[in-house]
Amino acid sequence: MVDKINLAQKFTLFDDQWTPRIVGELNDLHIKVAKIEGAFIWHKHDDSDELFLVTQGTLLMHLRDKTVEVNPGEIIVIPAGVEHKPEALSECQIVMFERKGTLNTGDAVDNERTKTELEWI
Amino acid sequence: MVDKINLAQKFTLFDDQWTPRIVGELNDLHIKVAKIEGAFIWHKHDDSDELFLVTQGTLLMHLRDKTVEVNPGEIIVIPAGVEHKPEALSECQIVMFERKGTLNTGDAVDNERTKTELEWI
Repeated sequence: MVDKINLAQKFTLFDDQWTPRIVGELNDLHIKVAKIEGAFIWHKHDDSDELFLVTQGTLLMHLRDKTVEVNPGEIIVIPAGVEHKPEALSECQIVMFERKGTLNTGDAVDNERTKTELEWI
Repeated sequence: MVDKINLAQKFTLFDDQWTPRIVGELNDLHIKVAKIEGAFIWHKHDDSDELFLVTQGTLLMHLRDKTVEVNPGEIIVIPAGVEHKPEALSECQIVMFERKGTLNTGDAVDNERTKTELEWI
């Protein structure tokens, strides 16, 4: 069943932050949406690049050597193995593409912020 | 060198239609942008799903059993092997994710609309 995904509509289906939902798949990737606010933890994903597309608000993507400000309509791809720490000073809506099974906290796997069971919406 | 990709800025860099440009990569995928208008040809990609994100205009994605209207902020994923024909009644800007090496015309490989050399912008 091929159908479209309306991103804005998906963001109306939940309010909690830092809890990615799955909205689609593309080959071995999951497409996820999340609302974030505040700072996440430093982590990396050794086996997959990770893509962030901002649809609302501003994402501050901290890397070890700089911080990149990502605004609506902008994408950032974090290569596998690169440490990063997402932060949003006010609520930000993001779309993520990452390999199926990728944990949100990457190598910081037992962190209290790790989400292992993701809901499809 | 990790940096962001501003989609709107990428669309200012070219005017010709039906000529995808590569703007990024994610694992084994290329991220491409294109301007389209009019009808493309029926084709399929046997070895990769293909994702379309509309950023401006309306994409009519014809499938053999229906047509899906995809508007800005909406995504459609065409599974591998599924025949499709993109169309836009007026100019439409799309972002595509597809496996590196995927031809725009899929199995209709020798079509006059096939683009084999894609530019990075």
